[in-house]
Amino acid sequence: MVVALLTDFGTKDHYIGVVKGKILCGLDPSQYPVFVDITHEIPPQDVLKGALALFFAYKYFPKGTIFLCVVDPGVGTERKAIILQTEEHTFVGPDNGLFSFIIKNEPIKACFEIDKEKVLEPPYSSTFHARDLFAPAVARLIKGEDLRSFTKELSKDELVVFPLPEVVETEDGLLVPVIDVDRFGNLITALHQSTCKRKFKVLVNDKEVPFVPSYGYAEKGKLIALFGSEGFLEIAVREGSAYERLGIPKVKIVWISK
Amino acid sequence: MVVALLTDFGTKDHYIGVVKGKILCGLDPSQYPVFVDITHEIPPQDVLKGALALFFAYKYFPKGTIFLCVVDPGVGTERKAIILQTEEHTFVGPDNGLFSFIIKNEPIKACFEIDKEKVLEPPYSSTFHARDLFAPAVARLIKGEDLRSFTKELSKDELVVFPLPEVVETEDGLLVPVIDVDRFGNLITALHQSTCKRKFKVLVNDKEVPFVPSYGYAEKGKLIALFGSEGFLEIAVREGSAYERLGIPKVKIVWISK
Amino acid sequence: MVVALLTDFGTKDHYIGVVKGKILCGLDPSQYPVFVDITHEIPPQDVLKGALALFFAYKYFPKGTIFLCVVDPGVGTERKAIILQTEEHTFVGPDNGLFSFIIKNEPIKACFEIDKEKVLEPPYSSTFHARDLFAPAVARLIKGEDLRSFTKELSKDELVVFPLPEVVETEDGLLVPVIDVDRFGNLITALHQSTCKRKFKVLVNDKEVPFVPSYGYAEKGKLIALFGSEGFLEIAVREGSAYERLGIPKVKIVWISK
Repeated sequence: MVVALLTDFGTKDHYIGVVKGKILCGLDPSQYPVFVDITHEIPPQDVLKGALALFFAYKYFPKGTIFLCVVDPGVGTERKAIILQTEEHTFVGPDNGLFSFIIKNEPIKACFEIDKEKVLEPPYSSTFHARDLFAPAVARLIKGEDLRSFTKELSKDELVVFPLPEVVETEDGLLVPVIDVDRFGNLITALHQSTCKRKFKVLVNDKEVPFVPSYGYAEKGKLIALFGSEGFLEIAVREGSAYERLGIPKVKIVWISK
Repeated sequence: MVVALLTDFGTKDHYIGVVKGKILCGLDPSQYPVFVDITHEIPPQDVLKGALALFFAYKYFPKGTIFLCVVDPGVGTERKAIILQTEEHTFVGPDNGLFSFIIKNEPIKACFEIDKEKVLEPPYSSTFHARDLFAPAVARLIKGEDLRSFTKELSKDELVVFPLPEVVETEDGLLVPVIDVDRFGNLITALHQSTCKRKFKVLVNDKEVPFVPSYGYAEKGKLIALFGSEGFLEIAVREGSAYERLGIPKVKIVWISK
Repeated sequence: MVVALLTDFGTKDHYIGVVKGKILCGLDPSQYPVFVDITHEIPPQDVLKGALALFFAYKYFPKGTIFLCVVDPGVGTERKAIILQTEEHTFVGPDNGLFSFIIKNEPIKACFEIDKEKVLEPPYSSTFHARDLFAPAVARLIKGEDLRSFTKELSKDELVVFPLPEVVETEDGLLVPVIDVDRFGNLITALHQSTCKRKFKVLVNDKEVPFVPSYGYAEKGKLIALFGSEGFLEIAVREGSAYERLGIPKVKIVWISK
């Protein structure tokens, strides 16, 4: 069993270690999962960034993986704690949009609201549901407990979903928002290669930038455009940081064939 | 078997990876533990911060967990290398105060000094006991070796213990030191909720701050006080950083009922 | 089975989590390895730093460990993807010098080029070989697949190897380059203790610095020289950062006996 974790907890505090410890507390050693950290450095409370990182990652995990995802500015309020099941995976976390792109991209087989009264064990904290509510729920899932014993079913339509920043059509092409900046300073845009069936050129702040197959094809220090590992258009600098050079620039696609 | 790790090694170097490798070297694959990193970002040589992080974390780990904790400015000198056993857990690391709050909070069943002559294998380094002394000791514990074969028993009274910064009683309330700042910029104080049996208000730099049940109950950007996940009074900003706004402020509790 | 990972991916993005997920995807749960992160904070594209970190770490991992190492500015170009076997370990990554010090230090039993056509499964990305090429190759190694089914043998002489910055002999001693700066600000030089069979003194920016057995032997804040955990001469400050104080200084050894 694999438990993949994505949070905004950072790694300087004890928080994520404690969440893993708490999951293990609920299990027999023969049931211990393999933990895989997706990232814990989502900027604090940035639910959209968390949703994007999960969207870029989940497909590459084995069937049966449980994703515990917590970016949760509303912890301790009335926002729901949910479990989503897709054909291959299970997702556990707050109902605040963090699973938006899973919900849009995958058929949801079933979704459930965790019954706090049945899972929280006193003394519990109203500020750390990852430890006191979500971790025990994950342990119950690993043990194969009947979901009906600690959740109630929800309709998919009740879930919080927010939109991906969208590509805007212009007269001669597309205006393409930057949706993420990675550790290398690569600027990841909302334009997926599947929507580029015609020949095009890429303009960054109104200047053309060469489109290449991979980073290694450019000279060191050169600004380039390419389709990144998830198929989204990226603006990059070979062995440098596009973000440091440009900040968040205006990115346009201009069609050069019909 | 779970091995939980807490150090000031950071994650930019190979140090913590090597410690894990060295533990595994001493084991049969069937004995491989689950490693859980509590944190490796204790500020360099900050034994008090390390002791606090361990104190906030250890309760949430399964019975039988071995904690390997190394914040060790005195490495290579005469400071002892110790193993502590409580009812539920085992702690391994330097005797320099890192286990202060475990020793204060838990009955110590037994404690031992690791015999360097019996555990260090040449060539070893005098600057990296985590790898050359503590990791092999952890491997021996996992294998169930007799402690008498590589340690000698110590009295609990010989251990280095230092005090938690203390709450100070004033005429009308309590003066409350800030003991930690977490990744979110929350200011964690030394005041535990168990000592607040009367009604009170919270003053931060002499101005009252609303006391709420959880972060989600405040408006964005609002300064608040609450009991954090370990039950200690925290000063926080909803979706912001109290530390960035205030640095380390003066925090006071004023009783408003008898 | 242990899989040790060393990359420049950082931990703020989903990249390393996805690589682990992809390895697990190719395996039966009974084959799941223990993952040990050496570090993912090699500075972006700094192949030499990656090679050094691997060199400092590999000896401390169990026999049979597979090292997946990716610092890969040439991803997507013609640089080879390779598998190296030494007596004890297997190394997987790009052929760009990352394994230089393994190749110099260990007899290479065999080396292989991964056949991209046989391992890459469409759709794959030309920017993320760690996920699409190296991770599946690691999964095949764990499963014990015949290497001839997805690689071709290489001669060791074809591999990219670059030199370690070298110690330079002077009239009265040695000029010693700094090759690494660790998290504590310790300056690690290229001088190994095995080459210091005579008495010597250490000059840093032409001033003598005391040589001690371990950090703990100096006064707080004092500049010292010592042999570090890998046996290389280090310049350090007790409970402080030599790098912050000196940057990268000139380090000299002067022989004081024949």
